[in-house]
Amino acid sequence: MNVTVHGRTRHYRTVTFDRARNVVRLVEQRLLPHQFKIVATRDFRETAAAIRDMVVRGAPAIAATAAYGLAQGALAFRGTDVKKFIAHLETVYRALRWARPTAVDPANALHKVVIGMSSGKTVAEMRSLALGTTRRFADDSVAHCEAIGRHGAKLIRNGMKILTHCNAGWLACVDIGTATAPMYAAQAQGKKFHVFCDETRPRSQGATLTAWELAQQKISHQVIADNAAGHLMQRGEVDLVIVGSDRTLGRTGEVTNKIGTYTKAVLAKRHGIPFYVAIPLSTIDWHLKSGFDIPIEERDASEVLGAWGALTNPKSEIRNSKSGRRAYVRVANPASGALNPGFDVTPPDLITGIITPAGIFKPRELWKNRRKLGFR
Amino acid sequence: MNVTVHGRTRHYRTVTFDRARNVVRLVEQRLLPHQFKIVATRDFRETAAAIRDMVVRGAPAIAATAAYGLAQGALAFRGTDVKKFIAHLETVYRALRWARPTAVDPANALHKVVIGMSSGKTVAEMRSLALGTTRRFADDSVAHCEAIGRHGAKLIRNGMKILTHCNAGWLACVDIGTATAPMYAAQAQGKKFHVFCDETRPRSQGATLTAWELAQQKISHQVIADNAAGHLMQRGEVDLVIVGSDRTLGRTGEVTNKIGTYTKAVLAKRHGIPFYVAIPLSTIDWHLKSGFDIPIEERDASEVLGAWGALTNPKSEIRNSKSGRRAYVRVANPASGALNPGFDVTPPDLITGIITPAGIFKPRELWKNRRKLGFR
Repeated sequence: MNVTVHGRTRHYRTVTFDRARNVVRLVEQRLLPHQFKIVATRDFRETAAAIRDMVVRGAPAIAATAAYGLAQGALAFRGTDVKKFIAHLETVYRALRWARPTAVDPANALHKVVIGMSSGKTVAEMRSLALGTTRRFADDSVAHCEAIGRHGAKLIRNGMKILTHCNAGWLACVDIGTATAPMYAAQAQGKKFHVFCDETRPRSQGATLTAWELAQQKISHQVIADNAAGHLMQRGEVDLVIVGSDRTLGRTGEVTNKIGTYTKAVLAKRHGIPFYVAIPLSTIDWHLKSGFDIPIEERDASEVLGAWGALTNPKSEIRNSKSGRRAYVRVANPASGALNPGFDVTPPDLITGIITPAGIFKPRELWKNRRKLGFR
Repeated sequence: MNVTVHGRTRHYRTVTFDRARNVVRLVEQRLLPHQFKIVATRDFRETAAAIRDMVVRGAPAIAATAAYGLAQGALAFRGTDVKKFIAHLETVYRALRWARPTAVDPANALHKVVIGMSSGKTVAEMRSLALGTTRRFADDSVAHCEAIGRHGAKLIRNGMKILTHCNAGWLACVDIGTATAPMYAAQAQGKKFHVFCDETRPRSQGATLTAWELAQQKISHQVIADNAAGHLMQRGEVDLVIVGSDRTLGRTGEVTNKIGTYTKAVLAKRHGIPFYVAIPLSTIDWHLKSGFDIPIEERDASEVLGAWGALTNPKSEIRNSKSGRRAYVRVANPASGALNPGFDVTPPDLITGIITPAGIFKPRELWKNRRKLGFR
């Protein structure tokens, strides 16, 4: 999407590949929203480290980064010995695959690149196939998000107030995003609407990343505390909810997403507000048969007990990106512990529809439409 | 309640009066949970400033503070001229009444002290009546909380997991608290249970004040993000919810409380979990006929856009109360605004019962029982 830095507006993808220098370029997401910076990883180990250390996050974004890392590793190989090349590739694969062990998207992406290379006979052919497959993978990922936007934009009418949770924006993808795709498409169609960004404690991706994205695209928005959505719905201030997903069960229609999503779905149901989930096809899990089988990551208590931000005065605006040293404050009572589940599971009865690149489906109709949705 | 400072345990009230020095002593709540300190206000102007600047907060606590401030002002008067004394009292009254203009409890408390003084003939008599009435007011406030504890403790069984929101603890009262009163009473009866403290963004009173209180009383507890309660309820991890209230409508049973309370009530209803509200009688509004008539305070955006805490390393424990300079970090995107409603309204269909000093009532039965509940 477009980003304006020092008054100059340019289009960026979250992750790109520079063939000439053999580097992967990434938006350094840990500095956002206070600083926009592109970093380059010079070899596959640095690319794996960028995934592990969350320079880049979001399932589709880390999938594309892992794919580029594999191509980068392939291109860096010197020599023509196919056996040595394949042994080298195995090292590269492992480094990228296990950078974020719980995510399934990078594994799928790496698998696609490996399949894409398999028809090559020589090292040169395989390197070339690796690069081509990776580029197609990234372009397909963008095309999927564009398709989500086309289908989802129909749900957005002029004057609507839309609630979203966490960040399922272009920063979590290669471009455009999933939950944000309908918003960007509706904006391109000239529709006017307002977005409430749930803060999304404890990591605050709504307040930091989604708010930054929407500000960059000049979409009217406000940050709200996670506690405020119920009140706003009760007062008729929310017309539509769109969220993303980390894993959606194709057999049951259950949606795993950032902690707090389930609460928003329960509230939307009570108020008769449509609740949509936008997902790329890679997010569908066709195997699991119950949401209770989805392991819920327990994260570090320090996330709940405090907050990261730019050290500043509450009244200052810190529009200058360099001001405000990044710091952690301990908010909670020092002697108290915390429980910090990272995700929750929303059952299909609370979900109005799932927006996919292949159209909008009722959650319980994913299985029936599995061929259309890429299940092989 | 008991507080342990440097290994020494002592009983404290949130607000007390020192007749000999004519000072009001207050727990300095803005320093908690990182530092426990008692401050003294030397005249009624300082006492009013302490209410205004939120050294003390919580409706019953500021009511008692205002009452003591009036007695303090009366006792400071030099002379025997009744007319001059009453003119002086009017100045004192205004300073205390308008320190927190939206709260109704201080107005009720001041009114009680004025009525209590009215039978005095001389300045000396009136000063003495002011002090006596104020002391009775504070003692009654504590007795009310004790009665809430007696009634509410019956709801708590061994091994229960209890959710609470915001701080309706002894820090918000003169002692014991409202939502916490059943917990402290159950603990005194030897019951074992666990409390989840909702963080309560944006001001985090659950993570700071409630967690501190429970830690001091050695009650098993954990802080959770406001987003996590729905997930915990879904997994059967919450057996009971108890919250406080800022204003409860006696005619309808609607409950105004800290933003996010309504959300927890909706979630509890979905999961069939009992949802109780603990209130002193002074919190009942017998006049308003609809929750939609309750003005909802819009607070400053900076609360949502950042966080206050002790500057530290996320891994450190800062058990030493003096370490960790108090600082504000801007979490959200600097160019984004926020919407910050301070309270929400929970309708009676979501409330299992209202725990009052006179017993537990269905929310719609408050009006029928209004004589028992102090309506005159």
